[in-house]
Amino acid sequence: MEQLVTSDFKLGIIAGGQLGKMLLLAASNWDIKTYVLDKDAHCPASTCCHKLVIGNQDNFEDVYRFGQQVDMLTFEVEHINIEALKKLKQEGKRIFPDPAAMEIIQDKGIQKQFFKDRGIPSAPFSLHANKLEVTDAVDSGQIRIPFVQKLRTGGFDGRGVSVVRAHSDLDKLLDGPCLIENLVDISKEISVIAARNARGQIRCFPTVDMDFNAGANLVERLVCPSSCDEATQERARSLAEKIIEALDFVGILALEFFVDTSGAVWLNEMAPRPHNSGHHTIESHVTSQYEQHLRAIFNFSLGSTALKLPSVMINLLGEEGFEGKVKYLGFTDCMAIDGVKIHLYGKKITRPFRKMGHVTILAKSLEEALQKAQEVKNKIKVIAW
Amino acid sequence: MEQLVTSDFKLGIIAGGQLGKMLLLAASNWDIKTYVLDKDAHCPASTCCHKLVIGNQDNFEDVYRFGQQVDMLTFEVEHINIEALKKLKQEGKRIFPDPAAMEIIQDKGIQKQFFKDRGIPSAPFSLHANKLEVTDAVDSGQIRIPFVQKLRTGGFDGRGVSVVRAHSDLDKLLDGPCLIENLVDISKEISVIAARNARGQIRCFPTVDMDFNAGANLVERLVCPSSCDEATQERARSLAEKIIEALDFVGILALEFFVDTSGAVWLNEMAPRPHNSGHHTIESHVTSQYEQHLRAIFNFSLGSTALKLPSVMINLLGEEGFEGKVKYLGFTDCMAIDGVKIHLYGKKITRPFRKMGHVTILAKSLEEALQKAQEVKNKIKVIAW
Repeated sequence: MEQLVTSDFKLGIIAGGQLGKMLLLAASNWDIKTYVLDKDAHCPASTCCHKLVIGNQDNFEDVYRFGQQVDMLTFEVEHINIEALKKLKQEGKRIFPDPAAMEIIQDKGIQKQFFKDRGIPSAPFSLHANKLEVTDAVDSGQIRIPFVQKLRTGGFDGRGVSVVRAHSDLDKLLDGPCLIENLVDISKEISVIAARNARGQIRCFPTVDMDFNAGANLVERLVCPSSCDEATQERARSLAEKIIEALDFVGILALEFFVDTSGAVWLNEMAPRPHNSGHHTIESHVTSQYEQHLRAIFNFSLGSTALKLPSVMINLLGEEGFEGKVKYLGFTDCMAIDGVKIHLYGKKITRPFRKMGHVTILAKSLEEALQKAQEVKNKIKVIAW
Repeated sequence: MEQLVTSDFKLGIIAGGQLGKMLLLAASNWDIKTYVLDKDAHCPASTCCHKLVIGNQDNFEDVYRFGQQVDMLTFEVEHINIEALKKLKQEGKRIFPDPAAMEIIQDKGIQKQFFKDRGIPSAPFSLHANKLEVTDAVDSGQIRIPFVQKLRTGGFDGRGVSVVRAHSDLDKLLDGPCLIENLVDISKEISVIAARNARGQIRCFPTVDMDFNAGANLVERLVCPSSCDEATQERARSLAEKIIEALDFVGILALEFFVDTSGAVWLNEMAPRPHNSGHHTIESHVTSQYEQHLRAIFNFSLGSTALKLPSVMINLLGEEGFEGKVKYLGFTDCMAIDGVKIHLYGKKITRPFRKMGHVTILAKSLEEALQKAQEVKNKIKVIAW
């Protein structure tokens, strides 16, 4: 058998943000040779890969040439030039997840249609070419307020989404091909991270509760184990398994669900890669989502997703009103709290709501973890010098 | 306050073996800029540091010049040119642990005298200039067989130690300045890893049992929690605290103890750095020994040493009879066992008994971990192509 570790085998990762960095740290434990494609020479992953290739993930030539340099390709983002991936695949390159699955997920419109076609419960939607078409549909009564608008491509980290609760919110509509979704009467948002290898083995991480920062539309706090009842968690897990199977997906697939006020579970959206809602797995689970992704794409047996300790994860976002060379306030104070695991991504410049790092808080009980997370949240701030 | 993370602050590490590599992976979580001094451009740490400086840790000029390039110096080995460290210290360089402590530990003769002067129980010993002096002392009846010979400097990974159980073993005596120790009637070998920061805060990791490979004199299996009774563990821990305090030590200090057949605890030796007997802390404890070392030298509060899950650690040693480009047998099989965490150091060449990696096995119960460790041991082999 081909040796993937301590060998000339090269794993290529598109791109080099924090997810790429954490994937590289997992790869380092097995001494996997790693190449990263990113447009920024100082990206978070730049310090832990074997080779950083400067290039744009949206550019056909950059992606195609990068793919030719490596033996296997994987991703930490979904917005990648899909034509280049298809050509590489055609030429025999091993690409996980498959470009066909990436193409479905890349476009939230196609994603929604995929859910609908397979009877996966997801909020009713309609597709529109641009902002004007949406306002026309509102005027004609075709779309009723309140609703959510999502750009079909390019949105991430809370960008590309607009919530319209009243007529006055129509100003906030984004321009471009988009989908309009009914607003679900959300009681809770939860996430399931599933993994599947090429042999078809599937394993899910325990469900987590996601608390959002309404302003930035970013996950603010993640709680594991989830407070949902077992039946709800089982429902989300079985939907996750159904979808990862239907996509013939290899790798980590992160699925975000709404639980509505009646207790029904709706699939919101998914990401074909390690996900913000799985950061805590590094310390709180036997296998991290990053190691699990590597296991899946290398077709190793998937690792145990058992919980070691209850955990709460909070994102370290750049404070509003600060932009420039990053400065961390309260870092030393937070280090004094037992069970606090700080991760800094190494971004040099902070901006409002930019994801600069995260903190996982471990404790014997979830109550203690929640209380300590609040302490951390009060103490640590990401500002500029 | 000076910002140590995401800044121009540079941490220098001498040298770049597996301990250096794992220290770097911990440093990466906080985005600490790291420089490594090693004579091998392909050393394990080479892939995860910001800058690798090629040089010899024994050479005054190499160490001195390396020290001038960084803001703080620390170590993953104890055999370092001490004169260079002293000069750097004199010039104001921050060095942790302190060269004075390193000097005591570097020389096993001085180390033993240090124990004796402070009333730390350690096997009775005598110092000798060379092999001839030892055989003369045996002939004259001054030294009685059985005994252990240890070279005062340079020994590590089981080298530099010779056990004389009968007259015929005298052939195996090593030449050079050495110490002769009475053979302790060993019932068990245990280890305590202690950490201390510059404020004097001390925290110890839970005691572990060390099972040795008698042939190679290397730790073969490490079991946590220890099977010793609480009183014995407390005795070892309090000795560890006494010594780390007496040395005014900052960083990780690993202490190996014998428990004799009467239950008495004897200090065997110590290492001023993260240690083989602490590898399991990466997955099985809230704080790893590597993170703890960084916390200590940066004068952060020390992290919780609470156990997450029982664990067994086994070293992956190069098989006897194989030398050359490394090949791992049974890697994929072992990955299929839940709770198995494989670490490969990235050494390209295997040699008999060379430390090529380690495996930590986590389980809900220690019994299960022990059984799985045996399975792993039977399956995984490090050979050459």
